[in-house]
Amino acid sequence: MRILVVGASGTIGRPLCAELATRHEVIAAGRSGRDVAVDVTEAESIEQMYRRVGHVDACICVAASGALDHFADLTEAALLKNMRGKLFGQINLVLIGQRYLANNGSFTLTSGIFADEAWPRVTGGAVISGGLHSFVLSAAIELPRGLRINAVSPTMVADSAEEFGELFPGMKPVAMDSLIAAYVDCVEGSGTGTIVKAYG
Amino acid sequence: MRILVVGASGTIGRPLCAELATRHEVIAAGRSGRDVAVDVTEAESIEQMYRRVGHVDACICVAASGALDHFADLTEAALLKNMRGKLFGQINLVLIGQRYLANNGSFTLTSGIFADEAWPRVTGGAVISGGLHSFVLSAAIELPRGLRINAVSPTMVADSAEEFGELFPGMKPVAMDSLIAAYVDCVEGSGTGTIVKAYG
Repeated sequence: MRILVVGASGTIGRPLCAELATRHEVIAAGRSGRDVAVDVTEAESIEQMYRRVGHVDACICVAASGALDHFADLTEAALLKNMRGKLFGQINLVLIGQRYLANNGSFTLTSGIFADEAWPRVTGGAVISGGLHSFVLSAAIELPRGLRINAVSPTMVADSAEEFGELFPGMKPVAMDSLIAAYVDCVEGSGTGTIVKAYG
Repeated sequence: MRILVVGASGTIGRPLCAELATRHEVIAAGRSGRDVAVDVTEAESIEQMYRRVGHVDACICVAASGALDHFADLTEAALLKNMRGKLFGQINLVLIGQRYLANNGSFTLTSGIFADEAWPRVTGGAVISGGLHSFVLSAAIELPRGLRINAVSPTMVADSAEEFGELFPGMKPVAMDSLIAAYVDCVEGSGTGTIVKAYG
């Protein structure tokens, strides 16, 4: 397959691309993508990326993460800013990509544990991931030409535990190889409308 | 209790206010609210409403609904427009209301079946309701002073089946009295962070 990975140079993107490259042609995209540059917060940039890369069987997004917040002074403006990349960016990858992906191709998005489990200081991240889950359910029945869509919902990755572990005491990290397997399953499997919880 | 109902003159609001009024003092709010006017799409209007009504033990929102969409030409702008009332309006009722509600008071929001079940032409509604569900989970652990928060997730109401039934063939409507009981349970019960599915 020809697989477009958006966020290819990130914590998850690097090992994911390495694994996929053993069997597939990987196109690495990102803000300063090796193969193609894209700013997922700009619809026009996403459109240009798809035009540039040509035939693609799968698009995986592992870019963008939510910011921390304080509920006591959280505002609509802060939520909107938080949503730009991880919610609207990923939604736009699908809404625009539905016209570019090859027949029976697939989208794999990245949500997160905060959709389904409450942790402190991540209300924005929760709204984003919860919205993404329901988007995936809905898009699965709406997408044309046999296109599939799924999301991987990771908890904290073991590789980030040193950096973020203190923020979420008691959160059990997921091993990187388990997480990579979840993405591979979405792309190489045949499911659609599923949320793969990479934790627990 | 002194209960503020936002959307008091709507399909759900009218019978809900009638039921609550048998045991509580009801303050009817809405775009042209009997007791207080509020435009939930404007944070400043919400702030003014809370200042005007004074002591309130519970805020229930049954206002605002999502628009239908076509996935093939759905845009970020259309999603954002759809989110203004039902997602950001309800979130603002909580973010702003956390400074006004009485100790141990409660918020009860309205989401919808599309968060968890895929139906055609409601991708925007799905994102809104999915985001609301995760917001409620998160807010439940963040709210101060014993404040509680829950959401009622209705399917189509029997009273609207004539109007909307053709759009969703096979969708089983919920009886109005069951739906009203779900709201009463959220307000008069002691739960928090729960999503009451008023269907199935």
